[in-house]
Amino acid sequence: MKFAKIPMATINRLSIYMRTLQELLEDEVDVISSERLAKQCGVNPAQIRKDLAYFGEFGVRGVGYRVSDLVNQIKEILGLNRPWNLAMVGLGNLGSALIRHGNFIKHGYIFTAAFDSDPQKVGKRLPNGLTINHVDELEDVIKEREVHIGIIATTASAAQSVANQLVLGGINGILNFAPVQIQVPDCCHVENVDFTIKLDAIAYHLSFGS
Amino acid sequence: MKFAKIPMATINRLSIYMRTLQELLEDEVDVISSERLAKQCGVNPAQIRKDLAYFGEFGVRGVGYRVSDLVNQIKEILGLNRPWNLAMVGLGNLGSALIRHGNFIKHGYIFTAAFDSDPQKVGKRLPNGLTINHVDELEDVIKEREVHIGIIATTASAAQSVANQLVLGGINGILNFAPVQIQVPDCCHVENVDFTIKLDAIAYHLSFGS
Repeated sequence: MKFAKIPMATINRLSIYMRTLQELLEDEVDVISSERLAKQCGVNPAQIRKDLAYFGEFGVRGVGYRVSDLVNQIKEILGLNRPWNLAMVGLGNLGSALIRHGNFIKHGYIFTAAFDSDPQKVGKRLPNGLTINHVDELEDVIKEREVHIGIIATTASAAQSVANQLVLGGINGILNFAPVQIQVPDCCHVENVDFTIKLDAIAYHLSFGS
Repeated sequence: MKFAKIPMATINRLSIYMRTLQELLEDEVDVISSERLAKQCGVNPAQIRKDLAYFGEFGVRGVGYRVSDLVNQIKEILGLNRPWNLAMVGLGNLGSALIRHGNFIKHGYIFTAAFDSDPQKVGKRLPNGLTINHVDELEDVIKEREVHIGIIATTASAAQSVANQLVLGGINGILNFAPVQIQVPDCCHVENVDFTIKLDAIAYHLSFGS
């Protein structure tokens, strides 16, 4: 399945719809109208219909969406009908908190490797059963463990060199928590998480209204 | 200063430009061309010019942008020419890692209050000198400490009740790390941080190309 020119905003909203639908599924809701789904996702119903229209026909007119069908369809659209293996690089406060966070495995993301450069940390066992490897072993270990996506939670100064090693190890997807823009070849897709950029957006709204 | 209809994507990009410009300032770069700035920010030069054009004239034709001037101008645009006080609610692994993270204070965000419901944690002193208050005291403490923005790092099930208390305490800006959509009055602006939504975008790119 390959669709031309899907805006990233649509892809991100599909993730949000899917999470809401999964909550509905846990509450044993079978069918939902686009109006109610929209309200729960904080968007308007036309937006949901437009986002889904990129990928075909969904829902039944006058009835709504079958929750479990739509979850499965969005999973297929996003490539989430399979597990993805993660490597965490950097086991400081943030990396350690993230690797313990239940939200990853809930959504099919499985940590299969963890790295740090601190000799005090290397060899230690994490609560999820993984043993921390030295970052010098990164290239070999990520190939061996079939890692698909690397997460960088190092300092800003270490991030670029870690990114280079991930790319050398064959990684084409990086989630970067280090507060620095990393440079990678075009084949590699990077998403940055910088909490303070979200705070800037809040500060803007508080200063000037929305 | 109030500008009509600035897209949120522009606001977010301004934050990214500002961070890159601040790094340049640390490296004692005085002037930068829009081409070089664009490359470092991972956007095209026309995008930077278009984003800044919402707010007036910046830069000198044939010369580029004066780095320190542009930092100050973007700070003014975003409402960042003043400090913002934060409250952290939820001192689990993630909340504890975040409150220790140096990136907040670097960008003018100062934690002035911290809350948890666990009696084992309440009264403990954090490395930044703050003492953890019980979440029952939230409304009074955030008024007293002039908190502007609340950060929710609780479980999904506690998040809505914390959001309600923050709103009652006069908070109009919330950064939500709990994996759930929270409902707030229109006067309150919420930004959600869900790492797995970023991973979904990476999974999509790995599955179907960009």
